[in-house]
Amino acid sequence: MTDTTGPAVTSDAPITASDPIPTPVAPPPDILRCAYMELVVTDLAASRNFYVEVLGLVVTEEDEDTVYLRSLEEFIHHNLVLRKGPLAAVAAFSYRVRSPEELDKAVEFYTELGCRVVRRKDGFTKGLGDSVRVIDPLGFPYEFFYDVEHVERLAWRYELHTPGALVRLDHFNQVTPDVPRAVKFMEDLGFRVTEDIQDSEGTTYAAWMRRKPTVHDTAMTGGDGPRMHHVAFATHEKHNIIAICDKLGALRMSDRIERGPGRHGVSNAFYLYLRDPDGHRVEIYTQDYYTGDPDNPVVTWDVHDNQRRDWWGNPVVPSWYTEASLVLDLDGNPQPVVARTDTSEMAVTIGADGFSYTRPEDDAEALPSWKQGEYKLGHQL
Amino acid sequence: MTDTTGPAVTSDAPITASDPIPTPVAPPPDILRCAYMELVVTDLAASRNFYVEVLGLVVTEEDEDTVYLRSLEEFIHHNLVLRKGPLAAVAAFSYRVRSPEELDKAVEFYTELGCRVVRRKDGFTKGLGDSVRVIDPLGFPYEFFYDVEHVERLAWRYELHTPGALVRLDHFNQVTPDVPRAVKFMEDLGFRVTEDIQDSEGTTYAAWMRRKPTVHDTAMTGGDGPRMHHVAFATHEKHNIIAICDKLGALRMSDRIERGPGRHGVSNAFYLYLRDPDGHRVEIYTQDYYTGDPDNPVVTWDVHDNQRRDWWGNPVVPSWYTEASLVLDLDGNPQPVVARTDTSEMAVTIGADGFSYTRPEDDAEALPSWKQGEYKLGHQL
Amino acid sequence: MTDTTGPAVTSDAPITASDPIPTPVAPPPDILRCAYMELVVTDLAASRNFYVEVLGLVVTEEDEDTVYLRSLEEFIHHNLVLRKGPLAAVAAFSYRVRSPEELDKAVEFYTELGCRVVRRKDGFTKGLGDSVRVIDPLGFPYEFFYDVEHVERLAWRYELHTPGALVRLDHFNQVTPDVPRAVKFMEDLGFRVTEDIQDSEGTTYAAWMRRKPTVHDTAMTGGDGPRMHHVAFATHEKHNIIAICDKLGALRMSDRIERGPGRHGVSNAFYLYLRDPDGHRVEIYTQDYYTGDPDNPVVTWDVHDNQRRDWWGNPVVPSWYTEASLVLDLDGNPQPVVARTDTSEMAVTIGADGFSYTRPEDDAEALPSWKQGEYKLGHQL
Amino acid sequence: MTDTTGPAVTSDAPITASDPIPTPVAPPPDILRCAYMELVVTDLAASRNFYVEVLGLVVTEEDEDTVYLRSLEEFIHHNLVLRKGPLAAVAAFSYRVRSPEELDKAVEFYTELGCRVVRRKDGFTKGLGDSVRVIDPLGFPYEFFYDVEHVERLAWRYELHTPGALVRLDHFNQVTPDVPRAVKFMEDLGFRVTEDIQDSEGTTYAAWMRRKPTVHDTAMTGGDGPRMHHVAFATHEKHNIIAICDKLGALRMSDRIERGPGRHGVSNAFYLYLRDPDGHRVEIYTQDYYTGDPDNPVVTWDVHDNQRRDWWGNPVVPSWYTEASLVLDLDGNPQPVVARTDTSEMAVTIGADGFSYTRPEDDAEALPSWKQGEYKLGHQL
Repeated sequence: MTDTTGPAVTSDAPITASDPIPTPVAPPPDILRCAYMELVVTDLAASRNFYVEVLGLVVTEEDEDTVYLRSLEEFIHHNLVLRKGPLAAVAAFSYRVRSPEELDKAVEFYTELGCRVVRRKDGFTKGLGDSVRVIDPLGFPYEFFYDVEHVERLAWRYELHTPGALVRLDHFNQVTPDVPRAVKFMEDLGFRVTEDIQDSEGTTYAAWMRRKPTVHDTAMTGGDGPRMHHVAFATHEKHNIIAICDKLGALRMSDRIERGPGRHGVSNAFYLYLRDPDGHRVEIYTQDYYTGDPDNPVVTWDVHDNQRRDWWGNPVVPSWYTEASLVLDLDGNPQPVVARTDTSEMAVTIGADGFSYTRPEDDAEALPSWKQGEYKLGHQL
Repeated sequence: MTDTTGPAVTSDAPITASDPIPTPVAPPPDILRCAYMELVVTDLAASRNFYVEVLGLVVTEEDEDTVYLRSLEEFIHHNLVLRKGPLAAVAAFSYRVRSPEELDKAVEFYTELGCRVVRRKDGFTKGLGDSVRVIDPLGFPYEFFYDVEHVERLAWRYELHTPGALVRLDHFNQVTPDVPRAVKFMEDLGFRVTEDIQDSEGTTYAAWMRRKPTVHDTAMTGGDGPRMHHVAFATHEKHNIIAICDKLGALRMSDRIERGPGRHGVSNAFYLYLRDPDGHRVEIYTQDYYTGDPDNPVVTWDVHDNQRRDWWGNPVVPSWYTEASLVLDLDGNPQPVVARTDTSEMAVTIGADGFSYTRPEDDAEALPSWKQGEYKLGHQL
Repeated sequence: MTDTTGPAVTSDAPITASDPIPTPVAPPPDILRCAYMELVVTDLAASRNFYVEVLGLVVTEEDEDTVYLRSLEEFIHHNLVLRKGPLAAVAAFSYRVRSPEELDKAVEFYTELGCRVVRRKDGFTKGLGDSVRVIDPLGFPYEFFYDVEHVERLAWRYELHTPGALVRLDHFNQVTPDVPRAVKFMEDLGFRVTEDIQDSEGTTYAAWMRRKPTVHDTAMTGGDGPRMHHVAFATHEKHNIIAICDKLGALRMSDRIERGPGRHGVSNAFYLYLRDPDGHRVEIYTQDYYTGDPDNPVVTWDVHDNQRRDWWGNPVVPSWYTEASLVLDLDGNPQPVVARTDTSEMAVTIGADGFSYTRPEDDAEALPSWKQGEYKLGHQL
Repeated sequence: MTDTTGPAVTSDAPITASDPIPTPVAPPPDILRCAYMELVVTDLAASRNFYVEVLGLVVTEEDEDTVYLRSLEEFIHHNLVLRKGPLAAVAAFSYRVRSPEELDKAVEFYTELGCRVVRRKDGFTKGLGDSVRVIDPLGFPYEFFYDVEHVERLAWRYELHTPGALVRLDHFNQVTPDVPRAVKFMEDLGFRVTEDIQDSEGTTYAAWMRRKPTVHDTAMTGGDGPRMHHVAFATHEKHNIIAICDKLGALRMSDRIERGPGRHGVSNAFYLYLRDPDGHRVEIYTQDYYTGDPDNPVVTWDVHDNQRRDWWGNPVVPSWYTEASLVLDLDGNPQPVVARTDTSEMAVTIGADGFSYTRPEDDAEALPSWKQGEYKLGHQL
């Protein structure tokens, strides 16, 4: 890609951790894909309304305290669990592994790392069998499973599809203080970097990592953490995402729209960010690209490129950088949040001293007023 | 429409001018539609590149000083004229009338109003015959014509269509200090109001007016004027508008995107605002609704409804409210700009004292941070 | 348009009636647009299910014998009336006129022509006031009205929109033996031709005619008549039409799809033809072009051009040419059907002796096997 | 899935080969994905025009005899090679493997099977390194490679995208007489069945098989073979496919459209089939579903279900069943074609004695005339 139209492309991700987590001797489990997130919500009825009546996720099963939801092309029991609780938080980032035997590997891998590991033969949620939950070295509650109840894949059931039909769980996004350290650990777990955001001083602001051959199953976003930045569902087409916005407007719920819709630079996908009734962030996402070859080119974006997060240069709202959900330990208590010490992406791009460019050769802060972002504008008035 | 989902709907537009222009005795010309705008541009090559290479308008004819452009479904000679000049401005808002005889009516109508009127049998631009230009009572250079050279309608020439194909000129938008006065005059000229923005004190902030049965051929936007707010072209579908944004990103011209894409409350159309190399604003627009019945319901929006200008509640950037193009008199000199004395829409909605709501029953300023707009945010930091 | 890409374009429609209906001295009523069709259906529950549950039209009002339906952007009481009756047929093609006074003109116009005329101050259907019904000289039951109950325009009510949302009634299509005679009469009624299909011998096979500035409010299709060929509703985008097909598949009702989806040559619109439970044909249609100028170029297609009815050259099924709905007289009895004596479009294009071309210069019957149509193929096996 | 809306879903593919190829002791190479097809074309200029000027594939490199093309999201040298030759045919179905070492496995695997195997360290085409070509036990010329020249991934280069942008090579489709035998062999090679078409007597008519987690990298279609049925490229959205049809119409090349566009039952993708200047069949395809889990449910369709090949029940043209491209041996001579002895899908569904249904409970041949297919109709006239 030429300098004027896009990011640098390299054959691998030049991210080096200064404080790495040691690589275990035990091999990692063979992970297929991100499979579901367990969200603790404070008002189950409000959350159910948001995910089912507004967004159109399908209820596989529910009881007084829990709702199990799936997307329209899913055949496993659920992609999202809403569980009633006193504090809005994330109880699990759950991944499916290739076979039952991979759970043994997960136990060994995390045990060697000194992590807390809990295994339940009958699963932590309905619809699942043998499952392993851990608090990983980054502080996140991760789950692995293979055994799962099959349910009807509703791909052909167009009479159930809405204008904004969500067809797949696409990815998670995690906030962590030290991105290179997190990347190194996730590579040990078998993930590969597809894209990242860096600056010329070598700071890494975020990295996208995959198991299935899309741009990511999860991303590591620099910030105070461990926290959950968002969970993302895919639609087939861009108009589906627009339809979700239109419906939120009609329901006088447009204030749930935090950012977008827009086109990402990173991933090249069309996107929308919503906030659920507890403030959990949900992305709607469509049309990234195939990344399954081992030598898939890694795309590195300059943090000052104002098209990296929105290809159209539209400003990122500060809340998107600063707000995220707490995550829970295996006893249900919130994990403590550690502050990021590396430079913040918001500070270097839309803060008082930050700068961004549309064309690399332009002077710093040469953006027209409508592209400078809310934060920067604040200082100009 | 219920209170929670949309605007008030009334059987006519309750807009009253306190300082009306007298209605002429002479009947107005029978106007078919907005037909073309003549733009003066300071760098003809840059403007040609923007409208032809980037946006894909078709060159009907060109010479050293002028480029005549049309949209893909047009059969008259042009919808946009780019003329090289020393000062970026608008030389004419041009409308087609139903027959050659209507030009006599135009002369009488504006002459009775005391306006300057110039008629040229061979037209003011290539491709047109007998034409009348006037400076109307609001200070705008208006043109009327019937005779025009027919050219190929390229509707079926899909090999020429781009992903962002512009198929029709849709409307103009004018900035004028006294909206009720402008509306009354345009009604005398035969236009009808389809939608407007008001407040409970009776201030009118903007009004949309039509001849052809769409939401507008032109709109009157309250502000310092006479100035030209924007000229709008239509696409067939929403993805065409997204494709224009994507291409601007690829060309590292994303800073031409001022606002959007988004869904309008007013008009219900999907929109995007661009700024051309001289700063002239161009809207790309699709899918408003039929308004051709005499009793078409007028839709009145509350100025404090934050879905009125963007149905998704996304903030309007201040430049969109404050910046507009000068207009020229018939000698090519810029018309003086008169300040608006009525309340400004920006001030009452995103300024320090302004407020907006998503749900009418909510407290003022109850919007989440990401919906409060750039201007308001500036005061909070 | 060049010979290789499209049809002939002329400044007017060279259609001459050999047996014209005399032009009345009385002026015609000023018609705004096609407004609704009254369909007699034999199984009201089945029809209601088709139009409401499958196609998503909105019930304004209903009783034991009648269902009043409208499209999502409509503000008048209905666009379609389903009335239970013993014989599937069309009871009225109904048009809205510009003012109440136009009904007097309608009475005079048709009375002078010797037609049966019935006027009801309280309307023939619910939701309407003063209305005039006639049997026109071509044998069709036509209605005119102005007074109508306003209902909510659901354009902004996206929570009610389905993936295949029908937003407007677009047009009717009538089958009549003598197309030039019908065109001449409709021109007297104030309609204008926008496109037609002819051959080099001067036979006219079909003509499209408009009041509102789209390609048509009704079309005259050559065949045994008077019969109703179809009634058409518009969607915003092409994917909406595809969604209707997908839903019919999911409901195992795909046999309701008679032809398409495809792109028309005539009108340039994207289309789909369905058959309702009684066999009444419904078109779903989107994105034709503006035709409102008096000198709008008439597009004439060669009957042998195999892209005229489907721009992609896909064959037209014989049922589409031969089947149509009966129409009723003002007493509710079916009008007798008169056979067409002019050449049939089906015979000259897909019959044993017919021929079609993709490129005018190619030999007759040079089409590959997959483009020759079902009828022609039948003779080859 | 219930009986009325879709196919049977089973946990594995109940396809049993009566005359199986023995499973080699040597393990198969680890295949990533279908990567490119080498087509021999008789008029290189005509083929280049079709694939480059009409379909918009990108020329990576070309010389007098060969054109190397890629899709817009590809980063390897090519997805399609057009090579000039005396006879239209397929020279290679080429797959990328996970590492250079996998080529040794390929050599051993096919050598053990007694196949002819040729390895070239500098590749059979430009842009590739070490490659292995074989004639597989089914008679097809297969290629495997890892080393390849990287080129720019044009995903972000929207200024190069056309309305019908082809973004990925999606799959191949092969015609072979004995589908169960072919499936068994491909399973030995590491492929997995995702969907198939069978009848209640146990005949298998076609099967879809994948390496990457989409519905297929290749499919086995029952018929006289070995022949190449089609090669398929993906678009992002459905309107991209429609744009290709519209452009073909504008270029008066609509006779290149053989079948569609439509929605597949099998795969649930939106599709279009074209024929290139030599008659090679090209599919344009979008939006199938994720199949990467080991227990991905296999979908089995009844051969009599008329929604299996087109979800809307639109007839399949006979040419689509009967015509296919020859394949070459490693010396460039056409492989002999062996006749299918199992029942033909065309015969049992649209032939004189065949039947199809929309609803399983309906009587045989209960389809309305417009759904009976061209072949069947031929017998009725």
